[in-house]
Amino acid sequence: MSSVWANNLKISIFGESHGPYIGAVLDNLPAGEKIDIEEINFQMQKRAPGKNSFSSKRLEPDCPEIVSGIFNGCTTGAPICAIIKNQNANSSDYEKFRSIPRPGTADYTAFKKYNSYNDFRGGGHLSGRLTAPLVFCGSVCQQILKRRGIIVAAHIFSVGNVFDNPFSHNISEDVLKNLHNQTEIPVLNPNAKDKIKSEIDFYKNKGDTIGGTIECAICGIEAGIGDPIFCGVENVISSLIFAIPAVKGIEFGSGFKVSSKRGSENNDQFIVKDGQIQTETNNHGGILGGISSGMPIIFRVAIKPTPSHAFEQSSVDLNEETTAKIKITGRHDPCIVPRAVPAVEAVASIAILDLLLGSKKI
Amino acid sequence: MSSVWANNLKISIFGESHGPYIGAVLDNLPAGEKIDIEEINFQMQKRAPGKNSFSSKRLEPDCPEIVSGIFNGCTTGAPICAIIKNQNANSSDYEKFRSIPRPGTADYTAFKKYNSYNDFRGGGHLSGRLTAPLVFCGSVCQQILKRRGIIVAAHIFSVGNVFDNPFSHNISEDVLKNLHNQTEIPVLNPNAKDKIKSEIDFYKNKGDTIGGTIECAICGIEAGIGDPIFCGVENVISSLIFAIPAVKGIEFGSGFKVSSKRGSENNDQFIVKDGQIQTETNNHGGILGGISSGMPIIFRVAIKPTPSHAFEQSSVDLNEETTAKIKITGRHDPCIVPRAVPAVEAVASIAILDLLLGSKKI
Amino acid sequence: MSSVWANNLKISIFGESHGPYIGAVLDNLPAGEKIDIEEINFQMQKRAPGKNSFSSKRLEPDCPEIVSGIFNGCTTGAPICAIIKNQNANSSDYEKFRSIPRPGTADYTAFKKYNSYNDFRGGGHLSGRLTAPLVFCGSVCQQILKRRGIIVAAHIFSVGNVFDNPFSHNISEDVLKNLHNQTEIPVLNPNAKDKIKSEIDFYKNKGDTIGGTIECAICGIEAGIGDPIFCGVENVISSLIFAIPAVKGIEFGSGFKVSSKRGSENNDQFIVKDGQIQTETNNHGGILGGISSGMPIIFRVAIKPTPSHAFEQSSVDLNEETTAKIKITGRHDPCIVPRAVPAVEAVASIAILDLLLGSKKI
Amino acid sequence: MSSVWANNLKISIFGESHGPYIGAVLDNLPAGEKIDIEEINFQMQKRAPGKNSFSSKRLEPDCPEIVSGIFNGCTTGAPICAIIKNQNANSSDYEKFRSIPRPGTADYTAFKKYNSYNDFRGGGHLSGRLTAPLVFCGSVCQQILKRRGIIVAAHIFSVGNVFDNPFSHNISEDVLKNLHNQTEIPVLNPNAKDKIKSEIDFYKNKGDTIGGTIECAICGIEAGIGDPIFCGVENVISSLIFAIPAVKGIEFGSGFKVSSKRGSENNDQFIVKDGQIQTETNNHGGILGGISSGMPIIFRVAIKPTPSHAFEQSSVDLNEETTAKIKITGRHDPCIVPRAVPAVEAVASIAILDLLLGSKKI
Repeated sequence: MSSVWANNLKISIFGESHGPYIGAVLDNLPAGEKIDIEEINFQMQKRAPGKNSFSSKRLEPDCPEIVSGIFNGCTTGAPICAIIKNQNANSSDYEKFRSIPRPGTADYTAFKKYNSYNDFRGGGHLSGRLTAPLVFCGSVCQQILKRRGIIVAAHIFSVGNVFDNPFSHNISEDVLKNLHNQTEIPVLNPNAKDKIKSEIDFYKNKGDTIGGTIECAICGIEAGIGDPIFCGVENVISSLIFAIPAVKGIEFGSGFKVSSKRGSENNDQFIVKDGQIQTETNNHGGILGGISSGMPIIFRVAIKPTPSHAFEQSSVDLNEETTAKIKITGRHDPCIVPRAVPAVEAVASIAILDLLLGSKKI
Repeated sequence: MSSVWANNLKISIFGESHGPYIGAVLDNLPAGEKIDIEEINFQMQKRAPGKNSFSSKRLEPDCPEIVSGIFNGCTTGAPICAIIKNQNANSSDYEKFRSIPRPGTADYTAFKKYNSYNDFRGGGHLSGRLTAPLVFCGSVCQQILKRRGIIVAAHIFSVGNVFDNPFSHNISEDVLKNLHNQTEIPVLNPNAKDKIKSEIDFYKNKGDTIGGTIECAICGIEAGIGDPIFCGVENVISSLIFAIPAVKGIEFGSGFKVSSKRGSENNDQFIVKDGQIQTETNNHGGILGGISSGMPIIFRVAIKPTPSHAFEQSSVDLNEETTAKIKITGRHDPCIVPRAVPAVEAVASIAILDLLLGSKKI
Repeated sequence: MSSVWANNLKISIFGESHGPYIGAVLDNLPAGEKIDIEEINFQMQKRAPGKNSFSSKRLEPDCPEIVSGIFNGCTTGAPICAIIKNQNANSSDYEKFRSIPRPGTADYTAFKKYNSYNDFRGGGHLSGRLTAPLVFCGSVCQQILKRRGIIVAAHIFSVGNVFDNPFSHNISEDVLKNLHNQTEIPVLNPNAKDKIKSEIDFYKNKGDTIGGTIECAICGIEAGIGDPIFCGVENVISSLIFAIPAVKGIEFGSGFKVSSKRGSENNDQFIVKDGQIQTETNNHGGILGGISSGMPIIFRVAIKPTPSHAFEQSSVDLNEETTAKIKITGRHDPCIVPRAVPAVEAVASIAILDLLLGSKKI
Repeated sequence: MSSVWANNLKISIFGESHGPYIGAVLDNLPAGEKIDIEEINFQMQKRAPGKNSFSSKRLEPDCPEIVSGIFNGCTTGAPICAIIKNQNANSSDYEKFRSIPRPGTADYTAFKKYNSYNDFRGGGHLSGRLTAPLVFCGSVCQQILKRRGIIVAAHIFSVGNVFDNPFSHNISEDVLKNLHNQTEIPVLNPNAKDKIKSEIDFYKNKGDTIGGTIECAICGIEAGIGDPIFCGVENVISSLIFAIPAVKGIEFGSGFKVSSKRGSENNDQFIVKDGQIQTETNNHGGILGGISSGMPIIFRVAIKPTPSHAFEQSSVDLNEETTAKIKITGRHDPCIVPRAVPAVEAVASIAILDLLLGSKKI
């Protein structure tokens, strides 16, 4: 499938980090959906670099230009294409990496896959920069969901060993709105914000980088969404989540904790509350047998530390097939977690809209 | 997509737990691949219930009948269809669950999704029994990979709080073969076997169930396999892994541990060893930017405890929309982890063969 | 894609002419659709061989055994799998064709494609026999459409130089029902029936075979169905129609006649009739820009003469790569057109149900 | 699937006739393929309007801007995106058609499909203008095929009642090169050129339009390409060909003529020639059982007359649902056939490259 994702929605992502544009085509949306460009740019800015001390200094306005599919403010039903200009990229920074792959990146694997024909500059098509069009697509989907009472929001759950609170069993709409409006370090526990900033600064000052986790909730989704076996909610979200290059793991509901749980402890008991069938607890993360239960869908992802730190590393010279040393200079994020939050929301929004379309609910 | 998975390989899984047959169609295999039916049955038996004290007493030979696609012992290039007879299923066990969904299962969500038209008996199409055709497909793929020097093997990494050793950085072929031949409780550390059995027995004797984790390795795969963004190795494996109903999380390489790691610690340094480019450590789990690095691909999955335990549970009556009590009798696994091992290997084998086909390497 | 068709519906067809079974999996149908097995068998019998003087003497009851997806007479929403037993096939008839391909068949091309590993007996997976599971799938879809007022019916438009009437501009439901009930030589003009029979007998008595055309109408479909560019009604029908091995062409509405028409003559004028927007004529065959107009969808397909006639033919020996003579004995249809009618209806039914599902109309 | 075509190649076409850009993303190409931009522009110019007396006066340079996927003159293996600026479009021409659909166009069906939210100007996303990105994609594929000895070329077979010669049984490379270089009215018989011009002028002077047919040949393709049942050469070409809005029919080899042929006449006899297995004649059009035979693949398509002629037509007012008259002014082609030739070549090139990739031959 490569850079096309084709289930009920069809998404094609294109571009290379140092080419003229990156962008996306998003197809099979319903016609007549009002799209708020300001809201798209708001989400894009959360992902954009250079805004604060935590992110790389490369300045990119990253305002997508919409090329098709929106007319008089609404979706036309035809594919939406958006392009985002690459600017302020200093290709010479990367010239030296041509033959010496940076550890922890796709430099080596892309070289092998494409027989050296890949655009190696800045990671090319495999750069984290390609999450910008993903966030664009996600924001369009998020708006369509929101109009139907489905709210998607994520927060930083941890950076290094500093933790935010997890989502509670009952998530109020206010909590989600609040997260949406925190553009820098979205957290549930206000006290976590400064601790996380300090944690990032700590590694930044050392010239190092640090990983973390992000937790995402999808609230307001009815029971019965998702398809069996290969196309359950978990399959679809996880098939998309690894489009974010730094993600190394995903878990739903109680996730890896289920491995040491008893069945009598892990099963969520059914109750009737407010005239609706619900579960008393939400270990299942809103998904049973791949299908939504009506409870909030909850998942967490592991984000690895940015591979570009300031220390000298061991690598190889691909031409000579000998060892070589490499030291990466230039602008890089000490922690990619804050900028990954809107990308995680994007993935959740795309997945859920896709499944709703498949369930003929939209 | 529902019960069809269509990337380079195309898999269609069908059947319901208490219908006449379950089965699968596996399409787009190369022609001329010798398929060993005995080896398929060997893998099927690892998954089959009723073999020992740890698994349910329902006896199912689960020998697939091959209906098409194999001629004179080799693949013809046409789709392989295999059907597996359901037998020894006591539907009356399930009659009572028609209106009272079992907590922790898909009974409720399937009822909502299919407007009550689903075959509810034994979980119907969403039953764990549907992993039998998955194991069939996986075994066919595993054989094709093995002929090309790619070996897929999984072990029980943990049950409850009892742990096996993790895969070491250097995995020998002997270790993998040894795992393959352990049909009941495959582990790396022989001492773990009895501890795991005791752990399962402990919960079984209480009438309860317990979760665990499984770790899988894919060795012998060259660098450069996997497609960008939506079709990397992680995307493909994880889109398939949730076809196993009990899985609630997946992580690659160091997985969730990356969240508290520094970049300088997490990056695997490139080295030249035995004339080949490798990495000194394998935190990346053999995948960088979604593409194989040539190092072993390593992933772990979280398996939830079997939802069917012996205690009374709270549920609802779907007709009345009132609360109801339910107590599940009949035959059930105290721990599904041992039987899930071949299913995890199946997913890994399908994913890797699929990606090799996409890379035109087979 | 091979033998899987995956748009909104997913169809996987499997089996080989002389293997134990052929069959199909039909996935992504709505749950709760009542399916009449008698009606399926009625359609299957129209396709089945051996019923009359015009078709081959190979007797095959061809009653599909439904393995999954139907419960209490209704679709469950899970995939429907049906298997059809192959019987009365004399493989020894085909042994001699192993190395000498029959002209006009896929013997040679399959040998090349599959490096000789294909099941060559009776055409294997490329046999016209594989239209039986296609008719099965089509009949299920046709029933779901009929319940919504959409009727699909085809007739023999020509055999050799003998022609039936074309569909008129206004097609009544009675005409379509009448076609449905003509099991042998369905025609619009009752006088055409005997002429067509004579035409077929004429070639049969000579030991030769003859081609023809089939015309199909889909009535009762609303305006606005079909997707742009690659997934219009024409794209979808034609991507399926060549699953019938004998088809060599397809045309919609006025078809090839448009090539000598003036725009002022070919454009169908819009009118308001019975309170509905319609067109005065139907040169466009119910499709404009790939999207249904509400007028009957009309298409015609060209069916080639059965390649298996009684005369000696020139071929090659694939082992020796020298010329060879071949004379085909055994049971074969002098004209495949009558048996292709239900297959054409099947394709139309699958395509339209697929597009309706995509348009969220079902 | 809408405007995405996803088999082995993935193509996403976007844009609306009067939006800022139209374009395409072409994904899953092999890396390292040299792409000649001049050659792309050469093909684009054949399709572009305004070049001569036969085509509309709207001037569009239609030079695609390549946004991604080509680096140092070669494919990188990442998706190629090209955008084409819309200019010189006079939207006010179309304002009046908002509520009065033009007969023979998709104005009415798009209005119904998209609940009036479609960009109606100039046909929007359903405009023939969207064949420009199709030609772009086709030209990239055509170059990759040519490097491997596979040549794709089409000619005008007829306009109205004026016919060119058909392709002969033996097509020389010179004939195909000659066709490639005829930019205006590509024909096999030089005498046909002026007759066709006169035919078009005849209808143009009347204010009317005229249809025609195009014949395409693919030479140099080996035996064994194409997949069974749903993905044979015919299925793939025809699923793509209806992306060209004016096409109303397609036939392969002898096409509709097979309907009056005897089997003994239609079967192409196998011979050994120049040490290769060939057929004496080519009624099968290079395809048997959906798989290439090694003979030239030949198909013909029917092109309807441009619906926009100068006469008053009957239509309806979509707001009032009453009849209305419409007279189309502005710039339109009296015959779209010449400009459709590169689009037909594009479809053939995309289809064949796709199938070669699926057969692991590239």
